[in-house]
Amino acid sequence: MKINQFSIAPTSPAQRQAELKQLRLLKGDEENQLNAKELFETLLARTHLSCTTPLTSKEWLHDLLATPTVAVDDWLANDQPLTSDVFYRVALQLLEFEPGVDFKLDAPLAAWHKLGLPIEEHDQWTASDAINAYYLLLNTRGKGGQIFIDQLTAEGFLAWSYQLPADQKPLFFNGKPLASFDPARFIREVVYVETDMDTDFDGQADLVKAEIIRPVESNQGLRVPAVFTASPYNQGTNDEWGDQATHKVDHPITHKEAGQDAPAEMAFPIEFSHRQVTGHAQQATQHFSDSPAYTLNNYLAVRGYAIVYSAGIGTKDSDGLQTCGSPEQADSMKAIVEWLHGDRRAFTDRTGGITIAADWCNGNVAMTGRSYLGTLATAVATTGVPGLKAIISEAAISSWYDYYRENGLVRAAGGFQGEDADTLADETFSRTKRPADFARIKPVYDKYVHQLAKAMDRGTGNYNAFWDRRNYRKDIKGIKAAVMMVHGLNDTNVKPSNVKALYDALQDLPVESKLILHQGQHIYINAFQSLDFSEMANLWLANKLWDVANQADQVLPKVLVQDNAQPETWNAYDHWTAGQALTLHLDEHSLIDSNVHVAKEVIFNDHHDDDTYQVWCKDPAKWQAALFADPGYFSHRFTSQPVKQDLLLRGTPRVSLSVASSSDHGLLSAELIDLGHDRRLTTSPVIINRGGIRLGYHWASDDLREFRLQKKATDYKVIARGHINLQNRHDPATVDPLNPHELVNVAFDLQPLFHRLTAGHRLGLIIYATDYAFTLQGNEDINYQVSLENAILTVPGVNYLN
Amino acid sequence: MKINQFSIAPTSPAQRQAELKQLRLLKGDEENQLNAKELFETLLARTHLSCTTPLTSKEWLHDLLATPTVAVDDWLANDQPLTSDVFYRVALQLLEFEPGVDFKLDAPLAAWHKLGLPIEEHDQWTASDAINAYYLLLNTRGKGGQIFIDQLTAEGFLAWSYQLPADQKPLFFNGKPLASFDPARFIREVVYVETDMDTDFDGQADLVKAEIIRPVESNQGLRVPAVFTASPYNQGTNDEWGDQATHKVDHPITHKEAGQDAPAEMAFPIEFSHRQVTGHAQQATQHFSDSPAYTLNNYLAVRGYAIVYSAGIGTKDSDGLQTCGSPEQADSMKAIVEWLHGDRRAFTDRTGGITIAADWCNGNVAMTGRSYLGTLATAVATTGVPGLKAIISEAAISSWYDYYRENGLVRAAGGFQGEDADTLADETFSRTKRPADFARIKPVYDKYVHQLAKAMDRGTGNYNAFWDRRNYRKDIKGIKAAVMMVHGLNDTNVKPSNVKALYDALQDLPVESKLILHQGQHIYINAFQSLDFSEMANLWLANKLWDVANQADQVLPKVLVQDNAQPETWNAYDHWTAGQALTLHLDEHSLIDSNVHVAKEVIFNDHHDDDTYQVWCKDPAKWQAALFADPGYFSHRFTSQPVKQDLLLRGTPRVSLSVASSSDHGLLSAELIDLGHDRRLTTSPVIINRGGIRLGYHWASDDLREFRLQKKATDYKVIARGHINLQNRHDPATVDPLNPHELVNVAFDLQPLFHRLTAGHRLGLIIYATDYAFTLQGNEDINYQVSLENAILTVPGVNYLN
Repeated sequence: MKINQFSIAPTSPAQRQAELKQLRLLKGDEENQLNAKELFETLLARTHLSCTTPLTSKEWLHDLLATPTVAVDDWLANDQPLTSDVFYRVALQLLEFEPGVDFKLDAPLAAWHKLGLPIEEHDQWTASDAINAYYLLLNTRGKGGQIFIDQLTAEGFLAWSYQLPADQKPLFFNGKPLASFDPARFIREVVYVETDMDTDFDGQADLVKAEIIRPVESNQGLRVPAVFTASPYNQGTNDEWGDQATHKVDHPITHKEAGQDAPAEMAFPIEFSHRQVTGHAQQATQHFSDSPAYTLNNYLAVRGYAIVYSAGIGTKDSDGLQTCGSPEQADSMKAIVEWLHGDRRAFTDRTGGITIAADWCNGNVAMTGRSYLGTLATAVATTGVPGLKAIISEAAISSWYDYYRENGLVRAAGGFQGEDADTLADETFSRTKRPADFARIKPVYDKYVHQLAKAMDRGTGNYNAFWDRRNYRKDIKGIKAAVMMVHGLNDTNVKPSNVKALYDALQDLPVESKLILHQGQHIYINAFQSLDFSEMANLWLANKLWDVANQADQVLPKVLVQDNAQPETWNAYDHWTAGQALTLHLDEHSLIDSNVHVAKEVIFNDHHDDDTYQVWCKDPAKWQAALFADPGYFSHRFTSQPVKQDLLLRGTPRVSLSVASSSDHGLLSAELIDLGHDRRLTTSPVIINRGGIRLGYHWASDDLREFRLQKKATDYKVIARGHINLQNRHDPATVDPLNPHELVNVAFDLQPLFHRLTAGHRLGLIIYATDYAFTLQGNEDINYQVSLENAILTVPGVNYLN
Repeated sequence: MKINQFSIAPTSPAQRQAELKQLRLLKGDEENQLNAKELFETLLARTHLSCTTPLTSKEWLHDLLATPTVAVDDWLANDQPLTSDVFYRVALQLLEFEPGVDFKLDAPLAAWHKLGLPIEEHDQWTASDAINAYYLLLNTRGKGGQIFIDQLTAEGFLAWSYQLPADQKPLFFNGKPLASFDPARFIREVVYVETDMDTDFDGQADLVKAEIIRPVESNQGLRVPAVFTASPYNQGTNDEWGDQATHKVDHPITHKEAGQDAPAEMAFPIEFSHRQVTGHAQQATQHFSDSPAYTLNNYLAVRGYAIVYSAGIGTKDSDGLQTCGSPEQADSMKAIVEWLHGDRRAFTDRTGGITIAADWCNGNVAMTGRSYLGTLATAVATTGVPGLKAIISEAAISSWYDYYRENGLVRAAGGFQGEDADTLADETFSRTKRPADFARIKPVYDKYVHQLAKAMDRGTGNYNAFWDRRNYRKDIKGIKAAVMMVHGLNDTNVKPSNVKALYDALQDLPVESKLILHQGQHIYINAFQSLDFSEMANLWLANKLWDVANQADQVLPKVLVQDNAQPETWNAYDHWTAGQALTLHLDEHSLIDSNVHVAKEVIFNDHHDDDTYQVWCKDPAKWQAALFADPGYFSHRFTSQPVKQDLLLRGTPRVSLSVASSSDHGLLSAELIDLGHDRRLTTSPVIINRGGIRLGYHWASDDLREFRLQKKATDYKVIARGHINLQNRHDPATVDPLNPHELVNVAFDLQPLFHRLTAGHRLGLIIYATDYAFTLQGNEDINYQVSLENAILTVPGVNYLN
């Protein structure tokens, strides 16, 4: 087991003492009156909450070991001094590491170091050493995936603080707010924010519903920041609809001519009216009980952040239509930020005209959430809206073309073959959940989506005006908020190219950015045992939203990457792409350094017998297995020599070659693979303790998780993929001619890498056509002839590790 | 979708009106002053909580459809009368069924009937009809797996009731307490109950810790009943230990001689001292924040039941050792009931001598929980302890021999090959979680478990004194509590023979019993969409613990069985076994009605090549597939003709035949299979809505689940298994001689059935020896010769269904 902590803020001894006093762990002049051992005893006793009498305190200490054989109460009674050994032996037990399982009782320091926990060692412990070490211990992460102070808080350690006056809150500890807000007294209210659009063609500005959870202290003078999650899913989804609206993919691509432009999507009215204001209310009149929550938001809620959810236009209780990532959808989310910042009006209900202000908000807003949620956070950030100070953009789309298309191809998100912009609109159009409202809006919506489906153009797969409106990268320079990006290197749903483009563009801007790349797929990472992500987010948001001078920007790494070969290992870097460039030439079956070839070309054919075809269409995993086993019938594999030392591959690989299709259309796909019989990380994190992370005292919980090494070794792992339509050789928006058997040059990017190829492993590149997991499934009798002259694979940055 | 409700208590119109008034849904003389339509409007408006103004109420009604095209507010304004069509169209929407997905807007009554929901239809609706129908609607289960009143309560509908004086609580509705207790003010306290045993040999009576969650009103004069879950797992488990302590199973059984008796387990001291009482406290001094909870208990907690957890002897903060189901472990749990009933003392801490009474308890106790938890509930019930009024015994062991042994064989619980009584003791001995306490007790525990491992006797697999002490069936006649049994017909962990034996014995006693058999494995059933299990439990416990005259015993079916062929279908019966007896004779490859045989014997051999053997040891599912495909090498299959009509098989099947082993030892196994290419229910319930069941207002949640039909058809399903050591032909406690090649008569039970064999399916019986999923894996070159003369399969009860 290894624990990685990046969220500990530097503090002075004086600050530590002051904070411990604020938490009532130190009192009066104890730091000067007690010796190290007495201080240790005092801090221990005050830490253990359930002991309300000296007797129960002694009982508790009697069950902890100070030495391998002597209990803490007996050790306290003897004349042995406090040592590092005793301190960290007890500390391990407090952090719920188990003797005999997680550490050896006779070697606590060795275990502490191996776990990677922060330490203060001393030959002779002074009073001040004991205080400093205990302070650090309170900020140290235990086996249960929480820092010790949060572990205590979940037991009720801070329940007394619920009664503190609003102006004494939040309690900050080590630069971060503690869970000192009573969730039983949260205010949960609903408002309707008025936008400047009319996407449902009713002549009135669309209202969007927002649900707010905030501490009662925010009605008592404490102005709190807001953490806003824009989730089109939050008011319900039409799962049955989505299934019906899924497109067929068992058909070929076709030859394209230039100028086959898809029709435009419907334009929304420019003229519409705003609501008459009839009065102003101090308090909301509508409330709600629960909303689907992101557990990071739950973690933040008891720490004093107001949590805001909105599903935006085209959802239950809001106006408007579902537009799949259009600027209007983003603007409907921006409107929420504007209201929170005091720049826009909201109403207490949909018809009464009574406005309500977010007086309780300090005007500082962050946006959080993964996938569509993170996508909208990114989109709103590009508007530079005032008040938006930070976004945590997780697994976010930065251009929808990268989500549903690639280089002139209809190309799916992993696991969602046949889904497209119209499908997603249907799935999220939750005005269905209000049957009469839906009955009234249905004709308008049907007409709109019908046109949207034409505009997205599944026919050519080309980049066009529809996709350009949904490409937020054009506006990255507008971003003013600090950006924390989180993305899975194995995310085949929202692919890493999305975050790479955002990350790259941000490096040229005067905006603070942080990047975290993990080894997961399309997941959240706030419940891992090995990483203090929630605490990092709390430190960072404390800085951005509460204006705490905690040095968050300096403390947190610029680029943090989970290692793919070693579990529980997170390394800090300054850049994504770095190191030497690597160029490998494609030869007969090899990836080689030199351009001296044995073979001139390879040929494969994309057609299969119908049985095989049917099986692969239904189960792309079987196709993937066949692809790996294929000796060269429908693909061609090029393999490097085993690497002599670990190789860190960084950045976006690119394949360049010449190819001829036997038809007037064609596509090329490539898989980059890490070849080597080895135990790799599990695809998904394994749940270690269901509900084991308690986000506050009698509050929400989360499942403690971690990637493990798989039980069985595997032969390879796909580390990047890429696909291109041979008629989009220059540009996804531009159609190139293609004649049968004509050799044409193509060059295309694969998904970006941050991958350690361990010594003895080889790099493999498989070139093929139809990708049963991602592209249309044509099963055409097309021969592909790939010329190996000047066929290369490049990786922009490589580090040779020892 | 089908909804099955069994928990609706019969009520008079007067009672319904009174209850609606108590809930503030009806006021004054409205039942006489308003007409049906006005009452419907009034009830609707008062039901919708988040509408605090007439305006928002109108907005809400404007989004509900009264007719396929007219919203409720518009319909209320017109002169159309209330009709059944309108009432149930609106009702479907209130229960969150979706137009176009779950019902057709133009045919609400058809959908209502098809869903199986309770209905009151009228040609002309009177005021009283509207009240009665709305009352029934409040008790009707919606798409989300909750009755409407609970759905509303989760939204805050009863928040006002938190402030009612204690003597006005609980609020009963339809014979069941509502969620009117504020979870934010729950008291969570710890006490230490003193037992009359000394299982850790320290000369002092063992203390066992109990954790209590109870409403604040129980400190204000309201005496509440207690629901107690006895869970040895609740204070943590030693998972790493358990893995290490798992026994090897890749070895043969051996020849047994009579008189090979295993040594006795250690006896516990008879003489020991009790604690000095030094005083008495009114309030507990120790508290806790959270304990792993059974969600049914969470559901009950906000309904006013006190919830009590104890892990018993040998767990964290308690004294004693882990004894795996011994009478001492059961007695340590009985002690909790006795304290709750006022018959035993508890202390506020482990050393101070201050006693504390359960003054807040009305003396009525129920026990709940599944598996080991239900087992201990059953064991405590057999003591007839005063105060224990009811147990809900789920997937419970009634004799531990049936859990780890079968007919003279070491035979595992499904999925837990190599686990035994000593392993389970190790896994649950959570005194390890207090390192100093563990260091002190370890030598005593090691010695005890070492002896326990000998006494359980893996060598012979015989029933002996060790298992006899852990056989609660001997004492079923002592049961005084009402018993609700819940068991999965596909539970291969705790097998249905356990519940069958308990059920059968209870039928001869003056004790109220209820039996629920579901199609799951080793699971809880309180979060199914199709069954109102929580409400049934609430109705039943209201009767047993709150003494509410709700006719629970009459309303709830005696035997309730989930259908195996049709999803979401639950049928009520009066008995488990019933119908005609069925006898089938084993012929060459057939199961036939007559005793005229084609073949005289069949022979198979139990040995496999080493590769196959290794694979099957690691992956018993592969062995099962091979067994089904085996043409007769290592097994023999007998198959009936397809049945012409559905056949309901009820009770314990039995196989009788003669067999010879080519060795001086041997075993026989049998699988009964339902043969027929068909879509069957999923093995586990599918999660429909994670966290979708809200057990109260801002309180715990559960995942809504349901069995679905599997997507793909399968060829067969194992419906019962049985195993016997050929040297225990007469009795698991008695060793019979066995000579090689000697034909001996054996008869043994398979697991009990409640199974519908649908028309066209066939019954199959596979006879074999080693069961890689359950028995030791000997891989010996043994020939088994089965004589077909007088070889029969019997099923005691069969119904022919049309």
